[in-house]
Amino acid sequence: MSTNEDSPGRFLQRHHHITLCTGEAQEDYDFHTKILGLKSVKKTLLYDGQVPIYHLYYGNDMGDESSLVTTFPMRHTGLKARKGSEQVSRLTLSAPVSAIPFWKERLEGFGFEVRETERFGEPRLDFQHPCGIDYSIVGVTDDIRAPHSTGPVPQDLMIRGTHSIEVSMRDSELMDEFLQLAWGGSESQTDGATTRYAIGQGGSGALVDFVLEPQRKPGSWAHGEGFIHHMAFQIGTHEEQDALKAYLEGMGFIDVSDVKDRGYFDSIYVRTPSGALFEATVTHPKGFASDEAPAQLGQEVMVSPQFEESREELVAQLGVLKD
Amino acid sequence: MSTNEDSPGRFLQRHHHITLCTGEAQEDYDFHTKILGLKSVKKTLLYDGQVPIYHLYYGNDMGDESSLVTTFPMRHTGLKARKGSEQVSRLTLSAPVSAIPFWKERLEGFGFEVRETERFGEPRLDFQHPCGIDYSIVGVTDDIRAPHSTGPVPQDLMIRGTHSIEVSMRDSELMDEFLQLAWGGSESQTDGATTRYAIGQGGSGALVDFVLEPQRKPGSWAHGEGFIHHMAFQIGTHEEQDALKAYLEGMGFIDVSDVKDRGYFDSIYVRTPSGALFEATVTHPKGFASDEAPAQLGQEVMVSPQFEESREELVAQLGVLKD
Repeated sequence: MSTNEDSPGRFLQRHHHITLCTGEAQEDYDFHTKILGLKSVKKTLLYDGQVPIYHLYYGNDMGDESSLVTTFPMRHTGLKARKGSEQVSRLTLSAPVSAIPFWKERLEGFGFEVRETERFGEPRLDFQHPCGIDYSIVGVTDDIRAPHSTGPVPQDLMIRGTHSIEVSMRDSELMDEFLQLAWGGSESQTDGATTRYAIGQGGSGALVDFVLEPQRKPGSWAHGEGFIHHMAFQIGTHEEQDALKAYLEGMGFIDVSDVKDRGYFDSIYVRTPSGALFEATVTHPKGFASDEAPAQLGQEVMVSPQFEESREELVAQLGVLKD
Repeated sequence: MSTNEDSPGRFLQRHHHITLCTGEAQEDYDFHTKILGLKSVKKTLLYDGQVPIYHLYYGNDMGDESSLVTTFPMRHTGLKARKGSEQVSRLTLSAPVSAIPFWKERLEGFGFEVRETERFGEPRLDFQHPCGIDYSIVGVTDDIRAPHSTGPVPQDLMIRGTHSIEVSMRDSELMDEFLQLAWGGSESQTDGATTRYAIGQGGSGALVDFVLEPQRKPGSWAHGEGFIHHMAFQIGTHEEQDALKAYLEGMGFIDVSDVKDRGYFDSIYVRTPSGALFEATVTHPKGFASDEAPAQLGQEVMVSPQFEESREELVAQLGVLKD
């Protein structure tokens, strides 16, 4: 099967962000900012539902697309999730190849168990978020994305952003079709049971790896602590996004969501045949600088529209995050 | 796990319709109207996409909710689908128990292969739509729904509407949760690998049977000839529908669709953890009588809004359906 060059999936450019349901908020914040050295670029609240849950964004200095890891820390809800197939199963982050020994020592120094592996000829370090979500840092030679410049990790060793995601699935045929017909993907390589697709511009920050695990029990789709909820891809304009939504509906994917204003970007969501939830999103013109000055990004909590309570009440309820 | 009585899923009442992607249009029309004896209650076009495809509705005299089987005949598109797990895998129709011998003889007389089986103590006849979709007629003792009164089958023997649907799935845990937390389902019985849930009012026309088939290859989600595309349930009001949409989003099912005006009802769609696509729909006040007089239902083709061509051109392209 060849890529469908008529599909508006060709307008997808690269990763935008990846979103995880994690455990305790301060633990999540410390893991991303103090250990991985990412910048807090926005503290807000989950825009869905009526239960206040933080939505924390981590990335580079301005939170550029494909530098972003975002989390819903939900320990206080009591909801637990299950890792498994039919979901995004691993987040891999890009760092310079020369920084791999540094990261191994740094992670082990913080008490993490680190396993050295290799996929597609790239060295990687496998470890877990404190809530159990699978992470890797991958050594990449040609990643020109700008890292967080004022964090605890020197720039020449620092994470550049998301490299790839892994999706665990029990059958590949229908997802291969979906990627090629609808999501602008081109198959680039296979490594054992893993098939790598490049989206849009390709390269680090635009890869999706599908891992065939026919016997793995399906993981959660509903919110709960300890799994990767969805993967977002950048699309350039609202016209391109509308075209993609209409195209997916015409294919029969009529459960594609309405366009949702997430405060800093506008998103549509669709459940893919792999089971993973994908998003296509258009960044607002000012991005994260729309409600905070660039120098102050990610410091105060920005309350999402559905809550009427004061910011102080909500933050008191959820706990103040300490830098 | 017990049913969540706070979920707006409690507002779901019963089946509304089931929708199939079938083969050739005249063959589909003859099968439903001349062999099964259902009434053509609306001929329109699929509202999604830019390729004209008929949307044919079959049911009782006025096309009441839960009497409806609807089809997209798509032989002319060349698209083929695969039956499998993670989709609605069988449509079962309710007929009086005393009519089972009549239906066996009738179906065999038309050349169908009919297998006598039993589930949940109910006798049933298993056969297939000409395009290969699995159907059953189930003998039911207490179904008071009004049948098509002027068709080729006498009323006392006639089909009353949908009885249940079967959904094939490879794992039950997450769907059990979804049904009980979100979709207002209560587990009523099990029969071997099949678990029966009652939705809303329960009984014939409000049942969903989940068949655990861990080794069955997943079937299609995208449009193509030969599979059941989705299952629609009736919900009473737009306020209840909005509440269900918001509740699903709060659970993490953010791919629930926008509300779509389907001409005769307004629908939302969500991909469930079983893989089956479910719909919750509010019937318009005049239903199918909104654009045809009650006595003329289902005679002329009503063109869906996205097509600018004249009705005559579209019908010429798709083929005139002969009664």
